Amino acid sequence: MDDRTPPPLPDVATVDHDRARRCGFPEVVLCDGKHPADAAAIAVEILTRAPRVLLTRASAEHAAALRALRPDAVWHERARCLVVDPAPLPREGLVAVVAAGTADLPVADEALVTAATMGAATLAVRDVGVAGLHRLLARLPELRRARVAVAVAGMEGALPSVLAGLLDVPVIALPTSVGYGVGLGGLAALATMLASCAAGVTAVNIDNGFGAGYVAALINRRDDRPAGDGPAAHAR
Amino acid sequence: MDDRTPPPLPDVATVDHDRARRCGFPEVVLCDGKHPADAAAIAVEILTRAPRVLLTRASAEHAAALRALRPDAVWHERARCLVVDPAPLPREGLVAVVAAGTADLPVADEALVTAATMGAATLAVRDVGVAGLHRLLARLPELRRARVAVAVAGMEGALPSVLAGLLDVPVIALPTSVGYGVGLGGLAALATMLASCAAGVTAVNIDNGFGAGYVAALINRRDDRPAGDGPAAHAR
Amino acid sequence: MDDRTPPPLPDVATVDHDRARRCGFPEVVLCDGKHPADAAAIAVEILTRAPRVLLTRASAEHAAALRALRPDAVWHERARCLVVDPAPLPREGLVAVVAAGTADLPVADEALVTAATMGAATLAVRDVGVAGLHRLLARLPELRRARVAVAVAGMEGALPSVLAGLLDVPVIALPTSVGYGVGLGGLAALATMLASCAAGVTAVNIDNGFGAGYVAALINRRDDRPAGDGPAAHAR
Amino acid sequence: MDDRTPPPLPDVATVDHDRARRCGFPEVVLCDGKHPADAAAIAVEILTRAPRVLLTRASAEHAAALRALRPDAVWHERARCLVVDPAPLPREGLVAVVAAGTADLPVADEALVTAATMGAATLAVRDVGVAGLHRLLARLPELRRARVAVAVAGMEGALPSVLAGLLDVPVIALPTSVGYGVGLGGLAALATMLASCAAGVTAVNIDNGFGAGYVAALINRRDDRPAGDGPAAHAR
Amino acid sequence: MDDRTPPPLPDVATVDHDRARRCGFPEVVLCDGKHPADAAAIAVEILTRAPRVLLTRASAEHAAALRALRPDAVWHERARCLVVDPAPLPREGLVAVVAAGTADLPVADEALVTAATMGAATLAVRDVGVAGLHRLLARLPELRRARVAVAVAGMEGALPSVLAGLLDVPVIALPTSVGYGVGLGGLAALATMLASCAAGVTAVNIDNGFGAGYVAALINRRDDRPAGDGPAAHAR
Amino acid sequence: MDDRTPPPLPDVATVDHDRARRCGFPEVVLCDGKHPADAAAIAVEILTRAPRVLLTRASAEHAAALRALRPDAVWHERARCLVVDPAPLPREGLVAVVAAGTADLPVADEALVTAATMGAATLAVRDVGVAGLHRLLARLPELRRARVAVAVAGMEGALPSVLAGLLDVPVIALPTSVGYGVGLGGLAALATMLASCAAGVTAVNIDNGFGAGYVAALINRRDDRPAGDGPAAHAR
Amino acid sequence: MDDRTPPPLPDVATVDHDRARRCGFPEVVLCDGKHPADAAAIAVEILTRAPRVLLTRASAEHAAALRALRPDAVWHERARCLVVDPAPLPREGLVAVVAAGTADLPVADEALVTAATMGAATLAVRDVGVAGLHRLLARLPELRRARVAVAVAGMEGALPSVLAGLLDVPVIALPTSVGYGVGLGGLAALATMLASCAAGVTAVNIDNGFGAGYVAALINRRDDRPAGDGPAAHAR
Amino acid sequence: MDDRTPPPLPDVATVDHDRARRCGFPEVVLCDGKHPADAAAIAVEILTRAPRVLLTRASAEHAAALRALRPDAVWHERARCLVVDPAPLPREGLVAVVAAGTADLPVADEALVTAATMGAATLAVRDVGVAGLHRLLARLPELRRARVAVAVAGMEGALPSVLAGLLDVPVIALPTSVGYGVGLGGLAALATMLASCAAGVTAVNIDNGFGAGYVAALINRRDDRPAGDGPAAHAR
Repeated sequence: MDDRTPPPLPDVATVDHDRARRCGFPEVVLCDGKHPADAAAIAVEILTRAPRVLLTRASAEHAAALRALRPDAVWHERARCLVVDPAPLPREGLVAVVAAGTADLPVADEALVTAATMGAATLAVRDVGVAGLHRLLARLPELRRARVAVAVAGMEGALPSVLAGLLDVPVIALPTSVGYGVGLGGLAALATMLASCAAGVTAVNIDNGFGAGYVAALINRRDDRPAGDGPAAHAR
Repeated sequence: MDDRTPPPLPDVATVDHDRARRCGFPEVVLCDGKHPADAAAIAVEILTRAPRVLLTRASAEHAAALRALRPDAVWHERARCLVVDPAPLPREGLVAVVAAGTADLPVADEALVTAATMGAATLAVRDVGVAGLHRLLARLPELRRARVAVAVAGMEGALPSVLAGLLDVPVIALPTSVGYGVGLGGLAALATMLASCAAGVTAVNIDNGFGAGYVAALINRRDDRPAGDGPAAHAR
Repeated sequence: MDDRTPPPLPDVATVDHDRARRCGFPEVVLCDGKHPADAAAIAVEILTRAPRVLLTRASAEHAAALRALRPDAVWHERARCLVVDPAPLPREGLVAVVAAGTADLPVADEALVTAATMGAATLAVRDVGVAGLHRLLARLPELRRARVAVAVAGMEGALPSVLAGLLDVPVIALPTSVGYGVGLGGLAALATMLASCAAGVTAVNIDNGFGAGYVAALINRRDDRPAGDGPAAHAR
Repeated sequence: MDDRTPPPLPDVATVDHDRARRCGFPEVVLCDGKHPADAAAIAVEILTRAPRVLLTRASAEHAAALRALRPDAVWHERARCLVVDPAPLPREGLVAVVAAGTADLPVADEALVTAATMGAATLAVRDVGVAGLHRLLARLPELRRARVAVAVAGMEGALPSVLAGLLDVPVIALPTSVGYGVGLGGLAALATMLASCAAGVTAVNIDNGFGAGYVAALINRRDDRPAGDGPAAHAR
Repeated sequence: MDDRTPPPLPDVATVDHDRARRCGFPEVVLCDGKHPADAAAIAVEILTRAPRVLLTRASAEHAAALRALRPDAVWHERARCLVVDPAPLPREGLVAVVAAGTADLPVADEALVTAATMGAATLAVRDVGVAGLHRLLARLPELRRARVAVAVAGMEGALPSVLAGLLDVPVIALPTSVGYGVGLGGLAALATMLASCAAGVTAVNIDNGFGAGYVAALINRRDDRPAGDGPAAHAR
Repeated sequence: MDDRTPPPLPDVATVDHDRARRCGFPEVVLCDGKHPADAAAIAVEILTRAPRVLLTRASAEHAAALRALRPDAVWHERARCLVVDPAPLPREGLVAVVAAGTADLPVADEALVTAATMGAATLAVRDVGVAGLHRLLARLPELRRARVAVAVAGMEGALPSVLAGLLDVPVIALPTSVGYGVGLGGLAALATMLASCAAGVTAVNIDNGFGAGYVAALINRRDDRPAGDGPAAHAR
Repeated sequence: MDDRTPPPLPDVATVDHDRARRCGFPEVVLCDGKHPADAAAIAVEILTRAPRVLLTRASAEHAAALRALRPDAVWHERARCLVVDPAPLPREGLVAVVAAGTADLPVADEALVTAATMGAATLAVRDVGVAGLHRLLARLPELRRARVAVAVAGMEGALPSVLAGLLDVPVIALPTSVGYGVGLGGLAALATMLASCAAGVTAVNIDNGFGAGYVAALINRRDDRPAGDGPAAHAR
Repeated sequence: MDDRTPPPLPDVATVDHDRARRCGFPEVVLCDGKHPADAAAIAVEILTRAPRVLLTRASAEHAAALRALRPDAVWHERARCLVVDPAPLPREGLVAVVAAGTADLPVADEALVTAATMGAATLAVRDVGVAGLHRLLARLPELRRARVAVAVAGMEGALPSVLAGLLDVPVIALPTSVGYGVGLGGLAALATMLASCAAGVTAVNIDNGFGAGYVAALINRRDDRPAGDGPAAHAR
């Protein structure tokens, strides 16, 4: 991508500075389809009024553009997230993120970074797909300490159904586009999760690690909604 | 449906009496596809070990069959729910159920009955679709008192996106099969809700009022999960 | 349906008398879309050269029409199957049919009747969906005696994936049309089963209990294919 | 792409010179799938009998090929449009083009260039998605001056429903292919727009900025259709 | 349907009395899924502040319920519309509604009644499908007098493409669910209309005669939007 | 259906009397969605200028209505066709109609009646699905005398692929809606036929026996198109 | 692609030398997914017993590989076809190939080359889409001389419906993948063609120019099928 | 791909060492989406407790990474499989793998390598699609010796239906993504296989050669499941 002078912001974006007051968190920047210079400029604009900012679907180019302006930006490569957070929130509660397979890890990581930036303590459990149930059952004692669980799976997407039958907290089903044939693109996993016979399951869009982490953090919060200041709703 | 002697239970069902201990609530009976006599027998079996029971998608025949055995069963006609609950849980927190149109009310009511049976205080807001935003905006002060909101809509399903942009709590998107043409069956509403640009939204299956009410009640609970005894996961 | 004189067979059907020699079993009659008189006439024609016959998707009218000609026909109502079998085959091996929910039982029964008519010993395990895993785990010792398992499930269809992770024999995944919303018609369950991360799973068409029972019986046979004479391929 | 001598036109195209008389505007050239030399030759052929020409989905190569023949061709890069218009039409009325997100801007720009070339005054409103309603509400006074509005959105596509509830003029819903998971390719946004509960909404194909701008310009015209001479229907 | 006392309105509906001021027309009542008594009560409530009301998808039962309260209600049977309009608006301009086949007439009639109630002069052209083009070409002189055309077609839905190539005004494509096989439900017709190679076409949902007639009437109005008082946006 | 006086024809239909001159056959009447009185009136109108008429998808009510006006109308019940043909065309060539299963016969019969009314000699081959290839191979000598073959199949739809590999004439693939699960509605059969690896296959819409018979008759004609007078294109 | 020694044929292909006798034409080679050396070797093998060979979907690499073995191979670049035909068949009858837009020409050319290689005289009519009907009507006198017409169109695919209403010969509908949004991939065009209200239309798969040309040539032949020797069915 | 130090295994994978005991074979490594270093490390870890290992969907990079650690790894290029097997199992029974076309060979090879590694004797039959039935019929004597057959086909997928009508053993239908238009991606072939009218057919996911070979090997085993030690279920 070329280096260029970013256009004046009003030409590409209308920052929603009121978001933190209204929804409890400042706007979050979705980098997909945004020029690195534009994304960085929007992030800096948000930081003029908010204590921290989160950018998702960020490439190395987006990371470089933001770091040129804010050298304290942290780049989570596998999660494709950028975080500028000079004064991190204290960790509270526990959000568990449980991933079925190795290929699901980037999406799981996006959920972990999002929830952590919003102040949640997090627990990562990896490669515990339903073809080897004992791996999941072995982690139950840890998982039962969580206030909410995110279950990440592609292919047949059976993990959230099994997990919800074992826990007494909400399970956020996070389908991934991992798979081929009828599983290609994640629609089979998503349908499985929505049609689940287990109660306590809700789903987010395919590969939407941010959305799952965000709502998990909302559920995890036990203070009575005192005007949050972490990251917030997704700006397209 | 004919009167008949119900078969011995093991022939049609394996009741999961352990569910309340594991998931916080006893098993819930989905009446669709079950003979009224079978559904009633399963409910009575559950009550031998649990303090209350919930039956969903219950027809008048199911209601009659259960009342013959348990005259204290309450029949919520529009919600198609049956509840036997001799000692209701105290109401806590607040679950808001917001419905876009008049035709969405049966599904919204299923969510309301489920959440209430599980101990949630509830708020019903009706006919506030996005074609007349001022109706929704007028209810915001009430809605902001809720710990979680269920947004019910068919047709284009835009309500959850708008609502999540106005609240700082999780929004459970509940699509309904109300609509025609591309909206027929609820897939358009569901896709809208999953693809939402607003953070804080998760979705359940089309017309799954029980699922939305159940997870809303889980989120609403603020006690630290002390082995619940309300209704629980869905038995097919 | 009206009483009528059946038309001469050649006008509606060409019976494949060679099927038993070629495929190991005589032709099976699919009653859907066939007039009861025609279905009965075809069955009787098959019996002129084969020792037994199986009819599937048979209504009460089909049962009556066949019994008028063959009073020894047995009518399996929930399975919607008719069997004329004066000299049943000896039972061999073991075919397990495992059903997730109560509403899946008619399809499971079709698989059981088919496999049994073809000479398989059978084991029925009911209502062991993945929302309550312990129910399934409790039956594992019995299930491990089977040479092949049929896993029947609607809604999210997760049962075959879990079962295949616990057994060392082929698992025939049999999706049912039980469900609503994205699960309506069984496509979600079918996709789940095809996309399964567990090895050893193959799938048949939605609600095709006959097909699952048939192939399970083929797998169950350990004699070296000595020109069978049980029921056989599906005549439309 | 290689430099080459364009083939004689009849071999690839049959220019519809009668279009301006019949439909009010000369033929418009869709560059997708056309060799730059062919597209430029067709444009020049149109200009032999029409006062102006519009080319859509034009790449830099198309721009270079046309400018070699007509140095006065204007290249709108983000909109991917080429315009040759020596004597622009006077601006009349007002067409508003309202875009939900930053990634929707290229499609919105195609609508703006098309409507402007056809003589409409235009108003561009950007980044006013429904997750932050106040941004849209703040622009209502301006928007209420328009004779027709184009609402551009990808992902969940809720903007047109909300906008139509606020205005008393036709709203052209223009879905974009911006999104991922169930929103990928724009089908979710399109379905939302067609199933809208708000009256006054019609939709064009996904990413069809030209089509939306064209019909908006037709609606915007208040003269009693006196044989227009702006750009016209789409030649493939 | 049973006779019953309607519930108090707030329990089922929140009438949007402000709609006429905001959108130029009062709310319109969609009868699908509404009890006749409720639909009639809502209509009467709307008439307390608006000069006229339109009800769509109205059955004979809806007609009877409304006429009991307002004997001046007019019942358009084939169009399934009810109109109460003591002081009809003067007719202005011309809206042409062109239907491809005989089976498309009920949907076409819904568009005609809607547009007429909103003050448009109307022209109905019937049975002019593209398999016999000369029938359509023979009506062109009449059609060219219209300010906007609605093209109604099921099956392959080619009529709007052909019509837009012959006129210089907007064409509202109105797909119907007439057809079978791949045309069943109208999706093929809708896709044809959206993918049309002809400029000037926009589409509404399948069978949405109301939506097409409504937007046609909006386009047909040439007065500069002086706070209308005809029927308006669709209340679910 | 009620007896009623048919409305004047112009109100519901515009008969295309020119069709026979243009396309070689008079208009054909599709009865689906037409009142029996209307369908009969249209047929009689066509007969004022054409030597014969064909009506498809005709119910017993349609038959009664037509016979009241034309007692010489012949009612093909399984084919759901009505024919008035005082002077049948001489039979020429040979059209073979090959059906895979018993349930496909109504659709196959519609093709047979259509081709025969248009002057083709016909050959019907029934119940020769690919699960018993020898049944089809046994009929090859007869089939090789045909100028064109129609292959009718539901479920998996493999018959046309196999047949085209055995013949040197065009094969019209005619999918039927016979089937269940993924075969429900005929889309699987249609896709199979379109994706066929065998050359010489073209397809018509699901259950479109008329369309297959019509085009088979066109291909079968060897006279050099001398202004036919048999039945013709489909009037909706 | 690398130069390599082709493997022995039996390892990749089983040439069907009997095809010409059975189907009237030798096997045709589909180059997609075949190594150039393999494709060339198969073509040469076919020529050992057949007078000519046709290869479709051939890239420049395939052309080079074949020309190395047979310098008389002719490379039709836009049609992506290779032909080796030392003694071309005499031209008979007339096959018309009518294309709606410029982008449809490669597929139309594949149909033209196929039909011509099989001995048909051909007529190419280009860029006559339905948005400018007069262009098509102007070519009718020529088109009426054809024995069969192939109608090629992408996007909305309306051309075959219109053409079949004007001709008295079979129309082969050939959808192309030209388009975007709902037209992407050609499914909208295909559905339009299958659902066509005009009689006399059959369809082939999307972009299957070979299939359309092949069946058109079969229909065009008027000799009584005397064991052809042109190209034949498609080898995968 | 870069050379890198693999991360500690627990960070990306949880090897299921118990799989061989539970399912009869050790875990199999799916290389798609795994870094070559990770895949190699997992394979080596599996070999610490199992006698052999199979890796599927392996690229040249995966082969290089594994061979660096285990020079005895065998790389099956067309099958994209890696095998480390110092002491191969004795071959038993017979698994036939029958492929319809040349382009289906890579998927067929994956099935062959999998079954062979698990101890099955194998028979490969290639290029015997249904357009030339005699090629398949010529191989029947060989095929009838198999205990199970895998039928591999793309495009229309008719091969398994035909094959199952000729054999008396289970047929595993293996659809491939070979095709275009409606066959693109393999869904048409898969639907054909599931909807098959022939009994004895079950299907696996599109392109899932591993799954088909695995279940074929399970069926082929005639010893009474004595704790296998070959490769096993798929690790994501």
